[in-house]
Amino acid sequence: MDLEAVYRDLHAHPELAFTEHRTAGIVADRLTELGLEVHTGIATTGVVGVLRNGDGPTVLLRADMDALPVREQTGLAWASTETVSDDDGNAVPLMHACGHDIHITCLLGAVEALNGSRGEWSGTLVALFQPAEEHGGGAQVMVDDGLYEKVPVPDVVLGQHVVPYPAGMVGAHPGAAMAAVDTMEVTLHGRGGHGSRPETTIDPVVMAAATVMRLQTVVSREIAPQETAVVTVGSLHAGTKNNIIAAEARLGISVRSFNEEVRQRVLSGVNRVIEAESQASGAPKAPDLEWGERYPVTVNDPASTERVNAAFAAEFGADSVLHPGALSGSEDVGNLATAAGAPLVYWMLGGADPETVRAAMAAGTVETDIPTNHSPFFAPLPQPTIDTGVRALVVAAREWLA
Amino acid sequence: MDLEAVYRDLHAHPELAFTEHRTAGIVADRLTELGLEVHTGIATTGVVGVLRNGDGPTVLLRADMDALPVREQTGLAWASTETVSDDDGNAVPLMHACGHDIHITCLLGAVEALNGSRGEWSGTLVALFQPAEEHGGGAQVMVDDGLYEKVPVPDVVLGQHVVPYPAGMVGAHPGAAMAAVDTMEVTLHGRGGHGSRPETTIDPVVMAAATVMRLQTVVSREIAPQETAVVTVGSLHAGTKNNIIAAEARLGISVRSFNEEVRQRVLSGVNRVIEAESQASGAPKAPDLEWGERYPVTVNDPASTERVNAAFAAEFGADSVLHPGALSGSEDVGNLATAAGAPLVYWMLGGADPETVRAAMAAGTVETDIPTNHSPFFAPLPQPTIDTGVRALVVAAREWLA
Amino acid sequence: MDLEAVYRDLHAHPELAFTEHRTAGIVADRLTELGLEVHTGIATTGVVGVLRNGDGPTVLLRADMDALPVREQTGLAWASTETVSDDDGNAVPLMHACGHDIHITCLLGAVEALNGSRGEWSGTLVALFQPAEEHGGGAQVMVDDGLYEKVPVPDVVLGQHVVPYPAGMVGAHPGAAMAAVDTMEVTLHGRGGHGSRPETTIDPVVMAAATVMRLQTVVSREIAPQETAVVTVGSLHAGTKNNIIAAEARLGISVRSFNEEVRQRVLSGVNRVIEAESQASGAPKAPDLEWGERYPVTVNDPASTERVNAAFAAEFGADSVLHPGALSGSEDVGNLATAAGAPLVYWMLGGADPETVRAAMAAGTVETDIPTNHSPFFAPLPQPTIDTGVRALVVAAREWLA
Amino acid sequence: MDLEAVYRDLHAHPELAFTEHRTAGIVADRLTELGLEVHTGIATTGVVGVLRNGDGPTVLLRADMDALPVREQTGLAWASTETVSDDDGNAVPLMHACGHDIHITCLLGAVEALNGSRGEWSGTLVALFQPAEEHGGGAQVMVDDGLYEKVPVPDVVLGQHVVPYPAGMVGAHPGAAMAAVDTMEVTLHGRGGHGSRPETTIDPVVMAAATVMRLQTVVSREIAPQETAVVTVGSLHAGTKNNIIAAEARLGISVRSFNEEVRQRVLSGVNRVIEAESQASGAPKAPDLEWGERYPVTVNDPASTERVNAAFAAEFGADSVLHPGALSGSEDVGNLATAAGAPLVYWMLGGADPETVRAAMAAGTVETDIPTNHSPFFAPLPQPTIDTGVRALVVAAREWLA
Repeated sequence: MDLEAVYRDLHAHPELAFTEHRTAGIVADRLTELGLEVHTGIATTGVVGVLRNGDGPTVLLRADMDALPVREQTGLAWASTETVSDDDGNAVPLMHACGHDIHITCLLGAVEALNGSRGEWSGTLVALFQPAEEHGGGAQVMVDDGLYEKVPVPDVVLGQHVVPYPAGMVGAHPGAAMAAVDTMEVTLHGRGGHGSRPETTIDPVVMAAATVMRLQTVVSREIAPQETAVVTVGSLHAGTKNNIIAAEARLGISVRSFNEEVRQRVLSGVNRVIEAESQASGAPKAPDLEWGERYPVTVNDPASTERVNAAFAAEFGADSVLHPGALSGSEDVGNLATAAGAPLVYWMLGGADPETVRAAMAAGTVETDIPTNHSPFFAPLPQPTIDTGVRALVVAAREWLA
Repeated sequence: MDLEAVYRDLHAHPELAFTEHRTAGIVADRLTELGLEVHTGIATTGVVGVLRNGDGPTVLLRADMDALPVREQTGLAWASTETVSDDDGNAVPLMHACGHDIHITCLLGAVEALNGSRGEWSGTLVALFQPAEEHGGGAQVMVDDGLYEKVPVPDVVLGQHVVPYPAGMVGAHPGAAMAAVDTMEVTLHGRGGHGSRPETTIDPVVMAAATVMRLQTVVSREIAPQETAVVTVGSLHAGTKNNIIAAEARLGISVRSFNEEVRQRVLSGVNRVIEAESQASGAPKAPDLEWGERYPVTVNDPASTERVNAAFAAEFGADSVLHPGALSGSEDVGNLATAAGAPLVYWMLGGADPETVRAAMAAGTVETDIPTNHSPFFAPLPQPTIDTGVRALVVAAREWLA
Repeated sequence: MDLEAVYRDLHAHPELAFTEHRTAGIVADRLTELGLEVHTGIATTGVVGVLRNGDGPTVLLRADMDALPVREQTGLAWASTETVSDDDGNAVPLMHACGHDIHITCLLGAVEALNGSRGEWSGTLVALFQPAEEHGGGAQVMVDDGLYEKVPVPDVVLGQHVVPYPAGMVGAHPGAAMAAVDTMEVTLHGRGGHGSRPETTIDPVVMAAATVMRLQTVVSREIAPQETAVVTVGSLHAGTKNNIIAAEARLGISVRSFNEEVRQRVLSGVNRVIEAESQASGAPKAPDLEWGERYPVTVNDPASTERVNAAFAAEFGADSVLHPGALSGSEDVGNLATAAGAPLVYWMLGGADPETVRAAMAAGTVETDIPTNHSPFFAPLPQPTIDTGVRALVVAAREWLA
Repeated sequence: MDLEAVYRDLHAHPELAFTEHRTAGIVADRLTELGLEVHTGIATTGVVGVLRNGDGPTVLLRADMDALPVREQTGLAWASTETVSDDDGNAVPLMHACGHDIHITCLLGAVEALNGSRGEWSGTLVALFQPAEEHGGGAQVMVDDGLYEKVPVPDVVLGQHVVPYPAGMVGAHPGAAMAAVDTMEVTLHGRGGHGSRPETTIDPVVMAAATVMRLQTVVSREIAPQETAVVTVGSLHAGTKNNIIAAEARLGISVRSFNEEVRQRVLSGVNRVIEAESQASGAPKAPDLEWGERYPVTVNDPASTERVNAAFAAEFGADSVLHPGALSGSEDVGNLATAAGAPLVYWMLGGADPETVRAAMAAGTVETDIPTNHSPFFAPLPQPTIDTGVRALVVAAREWLA
């Protein structure tokens, strides 16, 4: 397979959660060409290839397939110009801004490699291509859609995520490796009216602003400094005209945490602030809170993680093993492991130009110079990223596939 | 003319600023039928009828024609279901939520009445139908488009606005009668990134929230309590997703005031806060401020106002003369008077059901029960509102047209 | 009487509310010397002189006597260096920073003048020297202490306040002339602890800061722009050390308004905000609110005010009649009139150097150059202020004392 | 020595930083009685005893001596009723609320024990009793006062702090064990005036409130969630009366962090916010910032820490070794090690009743039931705390004193 060509094609044709039809078609075709048993349509667009190769453990390798509503600004020759129409008929630009195109490509490459070396191992390989990681919780939807009735239950779940560390590096963090995330859409209810008569209204913009300022104190004052929590109000929308006071404001909030106690404490604080600030405004009714994505902490099994990191050190050299620490991003890959009762190892795969990283570190400009996931400028270096990702999947899988 | 039919037809077919083509067509047709000299296309859709009736002063009567992007919820049989497509192809609902349909109807009725009674007065009547009062400053645009080179320069400018006072009442406030308004769109610049890594970003939602909270202090602390000023952040928009920190936030702000010193002080305070809050966030660049509508204080000439109110008292009875006080709404009718060097009298015309007002005042529920201008429920009672509005224009005009 | 000497002596020896013993002694001595019937000890330090001079109306002239805890910085030769010990034994500096020394002096002068011209009028003069206007509500305390059982009930209550208008000017505002004031001390309850472990505390400084910011919105959003209201958090105290989180914060709040509906609306808003912000913090108990001074609106009887202003115009010339408008300061003199069922006229007496005012107005520096009441720099020009104040009291009283 | 009696006496007689005269006298007397070479008056009240016992390494054991301005509420029979007069003559209550009395007692006990077992070890013991740990940076002041010219330069610096962990437990955290602290007093400049005329003022209470709210965002938005930082505004003072707007507000701020990069980032953010919020208010001049205590990160040498913890495990059993983690409290003991170029091991000594801790943990009420350092209820159990502390110092010292 010309993996770089696969990657460039995927990158140029991003698709949103649960609509990864073109992507799933390509994946299914390639798996079929390689002779795997192919399951499609799990959770709408999920695809799973099974390669049975004698006795031995079952290893699940996972890639996620969905893209983001971001207008690409990478300037790549293969940059996306795709859009999709939203409910109102607006054109929404699309981009593989989180690198799932790399994940798919590497997993296809790993399947090809393991298929080509069937003589060297035995066991069962499950190559799972999941929809809707960004939005929709595709992992759990696949489980709920009967995943483990259709394919063998794995003994270990493995996967990777490309990140802006130097390309060529790879490694997993034992224990709580990625954050729990809880997202919500909050509607604050005021009372609308003309901007010249605020006294007849209950101003939702002020209510929202006070809420945002107060929410900062949940992290700054209510969580132990040694603990990790994030409360982000990512979106805030109210009103249509500068001289009309709207009737409501909508806040899109995401909360991240690394253990259940902190998680509950933050969520409780967020909820308390939202309700009290509504009361401080004399709101006509309590705010509405609608939960969105809620992902658990991604916990890497320590023993399995040590095993995988050791295999990486053997394959790439100890200097190439990343120690990413606990990341505040979130993932739903853990749901695949939890449902199987299997250990998880989910590692980070460097994708940034090592030279650029080095220069930025020297200049102290990493944060401004190195685009991160979800940035319109996020553009992992195709190589050695893809090679490394393929080899990482293979050597990790081979730890179990003796 | 069947004025109620005219009103219902106009109400059912609202049009936005500078696109009042259907409305202008109807107006021009009626004026032509009545035999007036008709000027169309002034400021795109403005229409002016001139009725020369011998020597004497020139009186300009003004009505405004544009509607609002509001989804009507009045339940009227003639409610608007019209929409217009915005730049992104979305359907924007339209409504005469400010009562300009009443203004047009009354002015057509007044022209008909004055035309039918030409034997009783002499002078020149200028019936001006202005586009774009809500948005776009149509009055000044008409002046700039050569209005007073095309039609006689008036000795007095008269006009009216329907408001939720009891129908049948009418009256003007001498001096500063309506507020100056200054509107602006402010873009606050942050730095976007993933919601889990706030430290790599400059969060525009927090910047906007702090700005909104701080803007409250301009009115609460910087303006003398006896002075009148309003700072409304009518719209606030930032971000698209709960877990992505956006790069910017946009605030739509309107400022109202009743004298120039206060106006300058408030605007200076607003500007200072916006800049400083941006600095407090460490913004990568200063905020952008784009001015929108900027209308001056609407100043009724005291002597002329006394004259008009006296004429109303004679016509309708002293009990029917409104004392609206200074209103915090804004108008651009003053630009027509200023450009002519003529005095202005701009009065308020009651449009609410007197019984409903009485009951609401008794129950202390005026603010919740009586829909105000710009509300989706704003529905002036056609009668006696239209009759009163026609007679008010006629008797006021006749004060000058001897 | 050498009124300037009296004034300089009073100025040099300020006393706080209800401790005006020296001042009261001087006043009582002078009234006794003039032969009046003198009542002392009403409301601890109140003094009233009664001068019965035949049939006719009873006129009450009122002066207030207390000073403020301000460290004088006027540089006057007769500046105060007095202090008083507080509960903790600290020395509190004292100053007649509100000009009550001028009020006393002028009233003594007016009594002397009216006493010396007894042949020209008849009726009863009540010269009332009230304690505790700044703090303690001395007027009502005098009423409650049996004032009108001890001295004749007046037919009119008259009084004056020195203000930083040009000396030589004097005049009253009809109707609501001075604001209602409601003051309160609020204790917000948090939970203390070490500054390094905020998560074990409920931070009262953050609670107080959020409360202060939210309180701004009561004026900016909940009161009609045409109405007048002030919410000032004059004092805010929490904590003793930068690294210890305190258990509580104390806010000293004053609210001013000019009519009862607005007053209730503001107080309700203030209360709502304080409670809700406490809840937003998860406070262990609701805030405590202790009312302090609560003075009603000072309402000048319109007809009586017109009469007094006319008398001022006759005495001083029309150019010397002030039109102070409604002032946002507060007074308890109204309680003396209300308890008597009598009309009130309370006027403003200019005390600033006219030249300085003129220069400051020309330079636009009035606010920075002209010290106002309560400023450590407030120093009314002794003359012509005292002369004008004496004559104003006499001519106003003589309007009733025919 | 009757160590409990020593402790009760010290507890009953607390002294503030650099005024520990009585305490220093007791310490010097005991050291002299034990035959040590005693140096007094280093940094005013510092005392150092030197015990030379043949060849071998020099070990510095450190205790701090100062107490806090806290009104004791422990109800102990030996509770402090001491006070000290402040600059204004007020009585300030004093309490050993941080447990330094325990530290002194244990170190005296350890010196006695090591002195009594001189035959078992050789080397030099330096017993250092430092003034002013809470306030004044006594460690560096001792260094600057020629400490290491007067006493031998140590090969290792050891010390301990009593904390509300179960008594009988003891242990050190390797690496960054306690936070850096930077404290500052900030004066925000407004413009004072009467509370009824906010427009003539620049309200420092509002300025301070906005600053406090904005400071929350430094931790919540500018520091990586995985990093540890605390910004506490421990004190906030402005104004004296509810109706007078003050001219300034004073904020006492402490900042904690665990590495230099985060420290600089937080301090930079705090500074930026303070300046910008001052500008947002239109302050007449920039805020004044006066630095207070600034202590570096307390870094325990990892190898030495492992050695000490192992010695503790041998002495007390592995179950009795605390793993306190990095604590957000701060210390200046590190300055003694840095100046000597020696490794530091600073451990935590449990002082709470184990039963109470167990019950509180079971009930989830640790935070409310177990008083922490600086609380007026902080009362370490004398035993086994003192015994454990003595033995811990001895066994740790003996690791070097072979």
